[in-house]
Amino acid sequence: MNYPATGYHHITACAGAAQEDVDFFTGIVGQRLAKQTVLMDGRFPHYHLYYSNANIEPGSIMTTFPYSRIQGRRGSGQVQSITYTVAPGTLAFWQRHFGRHKVEHGPVQERFGQRFIRFHHPVGMAFEVMEDKSDKRAGWSTPEIGESEAVRGFYGTVLSVRDVTEQEKFLIEALGFRKTGVDGSYHRFEIGSGGANKTLILVHEPDRAPGSWSFGAGTVHHIALWVADDEAMAAQKAIYEELGYTDASEIKDRYYFHSMYVRSPGGILVECCCNVPGGFEKDEPADKLGTKLHLPPWFEHRRQEILATLEPIVAPETATARA
Amino acid sequence: MNYPATGYHHITACAGAAQEDVDFFTGIVGQRLAKQTVLMDGRFPHYHLYYSNANIEPGSIMTTFPYSRIQGRRGSGQVQSITYTVAPGTLAFWQRHFGRHKVEHGPVQERFGQRFIRFHHPVGMAFEVMEDKSDKRAGWSTPEIGESEAVRGFYGTVLSVRDVTEQEKFLIEALGFRKTGVDGSYHRFEIGSGGANKTLILVHEPDRAPGSWSFGAGTVHHIALWVADDEAMAAQKAIYEELGYTDASEIKDRYYFHSMYVRSPGGILVECCCNVPGGFEKDEPADKLGTKLHLPPWFEHRRQEILATLEPIVAPETATARA
Repeated sequence: MNYPATGYHHITACAGAAQEDVDFFTGIVGQRLAKQTVLMDGRFPHYHLYYSNANIEPGSIMTTFPYSRIQGRRGSGQVQSITYTVAPGTLAFWQRHFGRHKVEHGPVQERFGQRFIRFHHPVGMAFEVMEDKSDKRAGWSTPEIGESEAVRGFYGTVLSVRDVTEQEKFLIEALGFRKTGVDGSYHRFEIGSGGANKTLILVHEPDRAPGSWSFGAGTVHHIALWVADDEAMAAQKAIYEELGYTDASEIKDRYYFHSMYVRSPGGILVECCCNVPGGFEKDEPADKLGTKLHLPPWFEHRRQEILATLEPIVAPETATARA
Repeated sequence: MNYPATGYHHITACAGAAQEDVDFFTGIVGQRLAKQTVLMDGRFPHYHLYYSNANIEPGSIMTTFPYSRIQGRRGSGQVQSITYTVAPGTLAFWQRHFGRHKVEHGPVQERFGQRFIRFHHPVGMAFEVMEDKSDKRAGWSTPEIGESEAVRGFYGTVLSVRDVTEQEKFLIEALGFRKTGVDGSYHRFEIGSGGANKTLILVHEPDRAPGSWSFGAGTVHHIALWVADDEAMAAQKAIYEELGYTDASEIKDRYYFHSMYVRSPGGILVECCCNVPGGFEKDEPADKLGTKLHLPPWFEHRRQEILATLEPIVAPETATARA
């Protein structure tokens, strides 16, 4: 079987208040605000905010729907934590940084021999900075976070599952991951060349109550894997359908990319997506990315209604212009 | 919220060998063989066999993919049992009938005050005949099963879930069911006027390992609810998407009806489908229904390859002609 997925493209979570979310990702994580747009599903306007590394590389893009209208419930069957890579030797910097900003965080821990610190978004979701010596992607810098300390992109995700068996079968049979290790309750899967941006870890939590699947503040909604093009998307959809994952969605036009979703047996929603010509620069030039709200053309007639509903946000200038 | 689903349309399981399946549904359950066609997804040919009551009514249609190539695993997150209604006072007949045919079955049991017997398909799946005094639908009769004893259609399904909360929220918020009772570990939900064909029961089995989601012999693949038309299908898809069930599939042309699938949080795949003009009589007249294999037009060019792969089946004449 020839599998199309190559690694992560983006990861999407439901945040709470929008400004709080902007402050967290631009100020605490230190990503750039790469795009301001809206959630394209449903009747109610919600932001869709994109944060990334310096070059807006697939595999560095964290996106959020600030969704304070409905509260989600964290639990099993969900992404438990999202892991960013940082340079070896920088965890002491991050510890001081989290301390200075009173960000809830844990001690230095180790998983599969790599050191990391777990820290929390104000709405409760967990993130990690993990030292990785191979990842050379260019992080974004801020007045507080230099290029040498910056997060470079995703290492991967930690998914909480009550049972490993069916999720493992899905990762291998439907997506082409291979299992590369077990460390206590952690099961590691890698795709392609493995390592940063190509790793997914299951944490086996047999007694943890399931989290919510519907949109709700404080929960990760989906992970998105990157495939080459629409042909690869169609091939992936055919793999799902042949195996019996008949819920696989149509290939959706998300304006900046194309997307297709399926539910995985552990409970986590998995998207595959591919680039489209123009990408994030379809509606604003490279040097203006993230500076203002853009709606997809099919929402333009609702602009006034949408703007009236959304909480105004202000991003630090250093998050949208080269710092 | 205006919910489109009105009750069941069909229920689909992966059987094992095809002839064994035909013998079970036509000889043991006593349904008519209403259509012989093929699974429309994937590269490998599999039958899709439809069994029903006398009038092929939505809510009486049991369908199977004989799927002996791959074995499934039964468990939680699946349909545990499919319940047919029978007339009050007929359980003694059914007990003798199962005994005579050496069909694995249990004693008379009661759930929510209704008496039923559970019995098993040769490949292991559970079915039930349940006495119901209100259901007046016309059953099919066979040389052994008279009209007065025949199964009339579905009462409903029993779905095994490890947690009730999120599945309950889905049934109510996404589909419009209401919760109408708890009996031990059973939680009952009804839609519309409730009762036969409009009832879904969750059985709470917190410690049961999850069953497989992919196609595999011995497991139920999905339940399908009936909605009015394509407009109702689109409305249901919009409900799913607004809630964040983003995996909801496109509306698929299944030739005899249109279908759309989503995964529910308990693990069960839920289809909604609607009639299309002609329905099951698009490719054979009413008096020939089920007598031979029909392929959808887009598979006709593969007819020889498909026929060469499929196990020949013979249905008793009394299962396709009015008995």
